[in-house]
Amino acid sequence: MDLIAETIAAIRPLDEAAMNAAREHQDRLTKPRGALGMLEGLSVRLAGIAGVCPPPMPEPAAVAVFAADHGVHAQGVTPWPQEVTAQMVANFLAGGAVVNAFARQTGAEVRVVDIGVMADLPAAEGLISRKVAHGTADMTQEPAMTPEQVRQAVSAGIEIARDLVASGHRCLVTGDMGIANTTASAALIAAFTGRAAEAVTGYGTGIDDATHARKIGVVSTALARAGLDGAPDSADPLTVLAEVGGLEHAAIAGFILGGAAERVPVILDGVIAGAAALAAAALAPAVRDVCVAGHRSAEPGHAAALRHLELQPLVDLELRLGEGTGALLALPLVQSAVRVLREVATFDSAGVADKA
Amino acid sequence: MDLIAETIAAIRPLDEAAMNAAREHQDRLTKPRGALGMLEGLSVRLAGIAGVCPPPMPEPAAVAVFAADHGVHAQGVTPWPQEVTAQMVANFLAGGAVVNAFARQTGAEVRVVDIGVMADLPAAEGLISRKVAHGTADMTQEPAMTPEQVRQAVSAGIEIARDLVASGHRCLVTGDMGIANTTASAALIAAFTGRAAEAVTGYGTGIDDATHARKIGVVSTALARAGLDGAPDSADPLTVLAEVGGLEHAAIAGFILGGAAERVPVILDGVIAGAAALAAAALAPAVRDVCVAGHRSAEPGHAAALRHLELQPLVDLELRLGEGTGALLALPLVQSAVRVLREVATFDSAGVADKA
Repeated sequence: MDLIAETIAAIRPLDEAAMNAAREHQDRLTKPRGALGMLEGLSVRLAGIAGVCPPPMPEPAAVAVFAADHGVHAQGVTPWPQEVTAQMVANFLAGGAVVNAFARQTGAEVRVVDIGVMADLPAAEGLISRKVAHGTADMTQEPAMTPEQVRQAVSAGIEIARDLVASGHRCLVTGDMGIANTTASAALIAAFTGRAAEAVTGYGTGIDDATHARKIGVVSTALARAGLDGAPDSADPLTVLAEVGGLEHAAIAGFILGGAAERVPVILDGVIAGAAALAAAALAPAVRDVCVAGHRSAEPGHAAALRHLELQPLVDLELRLGEGTGALLALPLVQSAVRVLREVATFDSAGVADKA
Repeated sequence: MDLIAETIAAIRPLDEAAMNAAREHQDRLTKPRGALGMLEGLSVRLAGIAGVCPPPMPEPAAVAVFAADHGVHAQGVTPWPQEVTAQMVANFLAGGAVVNAFARQTGAEVRVVDIGVMADLPAAEGLISRKVAHGTADMTQEPAMTPEQVRQAVSAGIEIARDLVASGHRCLVTGDMGIANTTASAALIAAFTGRAAEAVTGYGTGIDDATHARKIGVVSTALARAGLDGAPDSADPLTVLAEVGGLEHAAIAGFILGGAAERVPVILDGVIAGAAALAAAALAPAVRDVCVAGHRSAEPGHAAALRHLELQPLVDLELRLGEGTGALLALPLVQSAVRVLREVATFDSAGVADKA
């Protein structure tokens, strides 16, 4: 059995006994029942993921920033030069990007993964070199990846998740960098949810209306070429990734599968992670249970992906940056949810009267 | 000039030069312009509060939990016994409440203020004794406080804010504890916004429909007794507080005034802080500039208060706990917003190409 099949086979449902214990414990804590809103359900799910109540604190956390380039950049879908992908990788490694600042704020470690950057990158501390290709092919002309490239990228994501858990990390955070990757994300979301290109294609990092119109046309063209327009769930998920995905989408899908198999929470960042999570969930529906939607981005496709995944975002601040930044903002919320189960006194232990 | 007038006189508008510098700096950072959504505007405002760009990190932060009892408890507006206020104060001091867990998560210090608890509380480390009265009077029968009690409570809030800043705190966080205090909050919000009692009175910590109906009637009765129904902005804010407020509302209003005078951000918690902020803003409209709406609670009155204050909440997780918990969840977001201005590289410094 290969790594992907083996990982999918290792994914188990949430532990009902741990979840029931968490629900009962929440109701004994010194606060009105339900008063922590969404954080109570989240804490119950985290107990179910870990299989124990209280669950371990989700720390240390690691954000893996999967970087790749996209052949569809040639279609003029963004005003940013393709070189920016590699330049931002250097910025991540130097600690100068927003993801680095947010990681310092939240105590997370940053790992940068070259899964398919166009440029050849020099070895550097903090850089994991798992380059599958020098960017994808142009999905409007041909499949973005070969089936073998997809399997390599998914496997790399699985292995990176495993390695991070093996080195003691108890929370995985998705990150991404890739000029033009919101275009591939829109195509994936359209393919997996059955929505039209215009419903899921947004302004990305900030494009003008003419570029937006072109971007919608590019997504439609790619979907039509691949025969993926209007037929959700009918195609093999790895084939969908190969046709219209990116190397970082495939790797993040593997990262989610790996996290699920290792029973650690995976905090999803924005639209790129949402598209990748659709692929992972199509391969193994139970992965949704370990996914925490860190935030809802300004991209319309992201909201569509979250609805399809039935995930409620924790943060909604109109972010559209990527890198893992929105997921890192949610990390302290996830940690706070667990702290409640681990640290808050009960009515009995604190000598506080319950309501009449 | 007394402390309240002196404090109001010391409040200055936001520093436009610092805000312009922050806007220009945001546009040079290695991210698409505007990509951090609400956090960018927040960072600009924090520069305006501090009067310098980049502003100092808003840390250490201190959450002041103002505890008080309410005479209106006698009207049966909640199933919780009044003794729970003092019992929860003991829980805060022992570190066992949710506010303590969230403070540990975010590195904030907890100060508990007895501003008007019914019971006499023993001295304890971390407890600031500023008791103005043993709870308020029943606002359905008479004014909840005397004018002098209001001034004492507002002054205590100002002094606590000053003392925290003098001891090095760079961010103030509001907290509260007081059984029945959502009833007084609803009355204050109705009085300051001109809304009807039924539009702003919620289920608080969780009451049944019959209690909710009674609570609406109690709020209406108090407003009518005080002549505050349907006449926003016509009454003196300190008089409104005296008629239908709580000692913690008056103290938190002072805490906000004090923070504004000291030019530090004040993160507001839920509906109690929202009601208090309406009072503070009625006294000095510029205080809204230093207020950060930590979250939007499940209480309908809180949303009304935030709209009136023109504040956008950072977190929206259907919380209804109080204590400062929702504000503490927002603290890392506020700190992250400042970190961007302080730590992220510019396009020039990082050698990253800007968009075409």
